[in-house]
Amino acid sequence: MEVGRSIPRVDAADKVTGRAKYTDDLCPRPVLEAKILHSTIANGWVKSMDISAAQALPGVVKVLTCFDVPDIQYPTPGHPWSVDPKHQDVSDRKLLNRRVRIYGDDIAAVVAEDELTAQHALELIKVEYEEYPVLLEPEQAMAEGAGAIHEERPDNILAKMDLRTPIADSRYETVEQALADPAFHQFRGHYETQQVQHCHIENPVSFAWMEAGRIRVITSTQIPHIVRRVIGQALGIGWGQIQVVKPYIGGGFGNKQEVLYEPLNAWLTTQVGGRCVRLDVSREETFQNTRSRHPISFDVAAAVDQEGHMMARSCTAISNQGGYASHGNAIVANAVTGFRQLYPDRIGHHSTAYTVYTNRPAPGAMRGYGIPQCNFAAECMMEDMALQFGFDPLTFRLENIMPLGYVDPFNGITCHSTGLRECILKGAEAMGWDKLREQYKNQTGPVRRGVGMACFSYKTGVYPISLETSSARMVLNQDGTVQLQLGATEIGQGGDTVFSQMAAEAIGIPTEDVHIVSFQDTDTAPFDTGAYASRQTYVTGKAIKKVGLEFREKLLSYAAELFPEAEGLTISERFITDKAGEKLISLAELALTAFYSLEHSVHISAEDTNHCKENTFAFGCCFAEVEVDIPLGKVKVLRLINVHDSGKLINPALAAAQVHGGMSMGIGYALSEEMKLDPKTGRLLNGNLLDYKMPTSMDHPDLTALFVETDDPSGPFGNKALGEPPAIPVAPAIRNAVLNATGVAVNSLPLSPQKLVEEFTKGGLIGHV
Amino acid sequence: MEVGRSIPRVDAADKVTGRAKYTDDLCPRPVLEAKILHSTIANGWVKSMDISAAQALPGVVKVLTCFDVPDIQYPTPGHPWSVDPKHQDVSDRKLLNRRVRIYGDDIAAVVAEDELTAQHALELIKVEYEEYPVLLEPEQAMAEGAGAIHEERPDNILAKMDLRTPIADSRYETVEQALADPAFHQFRGHYETQQVQHCHIENPVSFAWMEAGRIRVITSTQIPHIVRRVIGQALGIGWGQIQVVKPYIGGGFGNKQEVLYEPLNAWLTTQVGGRCVRLDVSREETFQNTRSRHPISFDVAAAVDQEGHMMARSCTAISNQGGYASHGNAIVANAVTGFRQLYPDRIGHHSTAYTVYTNRPAPGAMRGYGIPQCNFAAECMMEDMALQFGFDPLTFRLENIMPLGYVDPFNGITCHSTGLRECILKGAEAMGWDKLREQYKNQTGPVRRGVGMACFSYKTGVYPISLETSSARMVLNQDGTVQLQLGATEIGQGGDTVFSQMAAEAIGIPTEDVHIVSFQDTDTAPFDTGAYASRQTYVTGKAIKKVGLEFREKLLSYAAELFPEAEGLTISERFITDKAGEKLISLAELALTAFYSLEHSVHISAEDTNHCKENTFAFGCCFAEVEVDIPLGKVKVLRLINVHDSGKLINPALAAAQVHGGMSMGIGYALSEEMKLDPKTGRLLNGNLLDYKMPTSMDHPDLTALFVETDDPSGPFGNKALGEPPAIPVAPAIRNAVLNATGVAVNSLPLSPQKLVEEFTKGGLIGHV
Repeated sequence: MEVGRSIPRVDAADKVTGRAKYTDDLCPRPVLEAKILHSTIANGWVKSMDISAAQALPGVVKVLTCFDVPDIQYPTPGHPWSVDPKHQDVSDRKLLNRRVRIYGDDIAAVVAEDELTAQHALELIKVEYEEYPVLLEPEQAMAEGAGAIHEERPDNILAKMDLRTPIADSRYETVEQALADPAFHQFRGHYETQQVQHCHIENPVSFAWMEAGRIRVITSTQIPHIVRRVIGQALGIGWGQIQVVKPYIGGGFGNKQEVLYEPLNAWLTTQVGGRCVRLDVSREETFQNTRSRHPISFDVAAAVDQEGHMMARSCTAISNQGGYASHGNAIVANAVTGFRQLYPDRIGHHSTAYTVYTNRPAPGAMRGYGIPQCNFAAECMMEDMALQFGFDPLTFRLENIMPLGYVDPFNGITCHSTGLRECILKGAEAMGWDKLREQYKNQTGPVRRGVGMACFSYKTGVYPISLETSSARMVLNQDGTVQLQLGATEIGQGGDTVFSQMAAEAIGIPTEDVHIVSFQDTDTAPFDTGAYASRQTYVTGKAIKKVGLEFREKLLSYAAELFPEAEGLTISERFITDKAGEKLISLAELALTAFYSLEHSVHISAEDTNHCKENTFAFGCCFAEVEVDIPLGKVKVLRLINVHDSGKLINPALAAAQVHGGMSMGIGYALSEEMKLDPKTGRLLNGNLLDYKMPTSMDHPDLTALFVETDDPSGPFGNKALGEPPAIPVAPAIRNAVLNATGVAVNSLPLSPQKLVEEFTKGGLIGHV
Repeated sequence: MEVGRSIPRVDAADKVTGRAKYTDDLCPRPVLEAKILHSTIANGWVKSMDISAAQALPGVVKVLTCFDVPDIQYPTPGHPWSVDPKHQDVSDRKLLNRRVRIYGDDIAAVVAEDELTAQHALELIKVEYEEYPVLLEPEQAMAEGAGAIHEERPDNILAKMDLRTPIADSRYETVEQALADPAFHQFRGHYETQQVQHCHIENPVSFAWMEAGRIRVITSTQIPHIVRRVIGQALGIGWGQIQVVKPYIGGGFGNKQEVLYEPLNAWLTTQVGGRCVRLDVSREETFQNTRSRHPISFDVAAAVDQEGHMMARSCTAISNQGGYASHGNAIVANAVTGFRQLYPDRIGHHSTAYTVYTNRPAPGAMRGYGIPQCNFAAECMMEDMALQFGFDPLTFRLENIMPLGYVDPFNGITCHSTGLRECILKGAEAMGWDKLREQYKNQTGPVRRGVGMACFSYKTGVYPISLETSSARMVLNQDGTVQLQLGATEIGQGGDTVFSQMAAEAIGIPTEDVHIVSFQDTDTAPFDTGAYASRQTYVTGKAIKKVGLEFREKLLSYAAELFPEAEGLTISERFITDKAGEKLISLAELALTAFYSLEHSVHISAEDTNHCKENTFAFGCCFAEVEVDIPLGKVKVLRLINVHDSGKLINPALAAAQVHGGMSMGIGYALSEEMKLDPKTGRLLNGNLLDYKMPTSMDHPDLTALFVETDDPSGPFGNKALGEPPAIPVAPAIRNAVLNATGVAVNSLPLSPQKLVEEFTKGGLIGHV
């Protein structure tokens, strides 16, 4: 068995020795350097620009402005394209924008012989603006007369959805009637999440040049094949005219599931005769101009019967989309769907969701894609209800979680396997839940401890909301080893390693005999939409399994030509063996024969597509133990335990590493991270790693990752989503632990010292001055 | 029709603008630099080496000697491997050699932080030799007691072959009896060719590093997949552990059909922890240490009947192999075979060939692979016989050339098409042959003019002497264009362009919609043995046609899913059309649908192998008009006309360019080029482009390339060999023109001023002093 083994990462040695090549390592030097001029207003128009001084600066090759770019609006998110215009992403930006929608919008670009000259030239460009009021919050943007940020959306509402499940109880006609039934416990709540940034180590960077009349772009992306498409759209040229290469990347988390600066980089090279142009985006630009996690507010209501059964809920979510549509309504739609699915309502459910343009830096895809937000609302709410109605919080959850066989009434996604109950019980035992809950009752004094938990469900990939398609190619080497080529991407998560294990498993060879082509070159890599939605081990995994079995069949079929009398041929320990287990020929010798046979020379390879039309739910939970210093508003996380049901684990050690990373992200989301804007100008105040407070190793307890392995019948190897889930339940678990410690329910993130002091003061734990 | 059009080269713009990337352009800097220590003796042993001073030099990373390398002898020539040990190439060198066999043999290597330091370190290495007498000529090497250059061959004879065709006339038992029959004109002659170098613009250069435990080598080669194999053999590691990438290359001509320095470069990186090491071979090293054209001497005899029919010939060829086997006996075997095939003997033929180790720089593959040598002998001989026996030289040839349907008695290669008669007649007419032959009779004075000609036959690829196998891959882009990926290589000959035309022809789309992947990366490129033997348009062409038709079928089959009612689907003008010619869907739309269909998403691609089991003959001739300054021994080429039958031309303009290049090479071979060795030491005296006299543009007349297009039934598009042929007939045509001008038959190459003055003196045209 190659699947299920904790083998070391195939890229481990290169990455720890620094031998691994990232985009910037590959950039030829000297190279032309591009820099972008960003607007100093958040809402308005560029009326005019004077570039004469910049253009005259020695070393400046070209200055290009929003008046020069092609008059093409294009979509940036990394979704599969749709041939149905109704399902296409929103095209709402140009390469450089005259219509300024965020502070720091891209309005001009300089190409120069070196970075300093480019930077200096930017400072010489004079801009005249027409300025409008800054709209940072949905309420401002939706207000009468606010003015349209995009003229296609006069009310600034990018999208609104309203979904009601069928009512399962004939006594009610609407969810609202059930929510108002006095026979039930009734609950209403309001929860809010903040805007945070991915903070991947490697900022977006790319370089581009022209060759053979085509544009070649090397870039740090999660989605090379989609980058190719979007560049074609943005420049208005055939998508086959572009070649995109993706080396190793230093993190993405969804921010590199969007095509932000590659189109500009590609266009710039066409404007300087095809010379190589590098576009390196600074940390500050990454914060201000790339994507982040949507701030979403949730107004929720619930009706729970006396036995603790969830009867009905409603949820109204308002998502702050910032200045550009990015992934559009998909994220808040995912949020309200996830909110509904984890605890199916026995009578019915009503979701409403708004995505609203504002002048904030535009949020987009980020690990969890709306689910960390809704999970905060859902799991705070569960805790608050349990407390209010006198239920044990674990029992209350166990009573209501999604059952095996659940089918979503809208998208049909089915629960093919679930270990959530076991996850909760395992986590509770690991935490010593019952003992600690008892122990932490009735604390007094300034420093108190508490335990909290939260659970979640998460679908695997995007089917049927969107297309799921993946292809793979395998090529036999002359020594019997195999090249594995994919369009799916290694983005630091260990994809290359688990893909290699899957291919080895399907073919029947050791993983060390699979050589994965880590870089994707869209000219030769099979098509795959890329790394997002925790899809690759599932969707790409199915393609690998399919192609692996085809490839294995070709090996066996060639062996059958060589041994026409033999029966029951199979592959075992690098040999073709017959039904008696006798070794007939080594794979190495078989390969040499196939290559060099004078009778039948064939270069064995297999390539195929798997169109995936399945989905399933992964599950998990987080248990947190905290110590709260009430006067300082300081939360110390003492212990953190995640327990996941992601089906069968392809590589348990990598799975645990994946979980650790997500838990770390959750700590920052819970306690310290927040993009802070100047309310007057819309300028980001803390767009750097000094002022933006990511948790450091000092803020981390030991992280415990546990698993409940189910065998999902729809997964290629029994596996389900794991990439995003670990980040989901951490923030509500910590918040619920703080509630357990202090009795104070904090309903917005992050639980920063300032906010906690305010809340503890309101709650009477800190005396009013 | 895409085939047959003179479209511009697909790489033209990049190459003339300097945008095209060659190996050294791609090398990261800074990089570790390797330099090789060459022996200062030509025959002997390295007894000891003192590297202490070199190793102590600051900046030196590692000094490695012939005492450090793996104890593995490996083969260097670029042939397909054979699983039959009897047909494997000779393994007669190590990465660095203790046994020194040529002056300048590779005995140590330095890796340093920069080139100057590496060079300086070389000078600090002290070497003690055991020295043997220098053997430069076959006669010396074969002499009793000469001493073995390779201990496996005590007589220094690498190989000897002796082939007799069946005797077709019962009056004779042997060819020798027919040759001695007084009823026939009898002829005996001796012809010799010299050692020349390819003089490609780009010397061999490579760089290598380790990644993911594997070795990656970027190199200027004609045969990337074979380089991969030979590195594996030389280092004794799995062939799948090596990745070879071939960028654009600055010429090869057969010298880069051998794997000379890549194994050393690959090994050096393993000795410095996988750091990137560059190995740039100087022009001097290229002359001394890489390959060249074999000097071959021919002793020939012929019997011709009174009507001018060729009855019988014998040929004994001795090929000077220099210090290493390289392509071994294959080249002289090809020479005596080609000698036999052009004018099939009516009674019988006897060939004997010897390949002899000496201490010369080792010759190997060079454009024409033995045929320019034998063609000099064959066509001088024809001219000399015509003169001696009173035949018209054209009629004499026309009477005896290979007929349509000829089948070689040994290898079965068949003449499936021939336009040689038409070529000769077309060339004669273009030259004004009859008029000039008349005009140049009976000249006197110091400056005289003459016309001469020569013709040739040339097989296409290496089947059935060796394996011919090729594969191709095509991938549909989202805009309906196609990626074409091959293992066959563009080496400056225009391969990429004609491959693209062939793919377009097979699929039914415009050539501009085919994007060829010019670089070969052995990790992903389909297998093909590479550029040699004028094989690619024929052998790879068959693979392209096969895969193109499969790919086309997949497009049509997907279209049939979309239009189940339609009949007679075909591809026309970028659309799928039905039998009425109605346009159903554009290829661009078909592509988008196939990628993004929610019913059936498939990424259309096709990959397959063609095992080629056919061969055919190409033909042609050269007509030369010269002016000879007798006292100066100076030949001025006034006009040069090549006429070729290479079947159907894929791209007539590129075909003409190919011919021009070959004619230029032929001028140098005829008149000026020769590698001169110091007879005492074996040191090359003129191993640089100043002292080695290549013809310049001043030495060229306008070159005329004409074609007779046959439609070869075995060719994928009616095409046959063209890469090597143009270089073949030029030297004998010029020699025969000098004979026509002066009456002096020069029987060795080159016709240098010194040699001509000697010959004219012997012939009485210059008075003895």
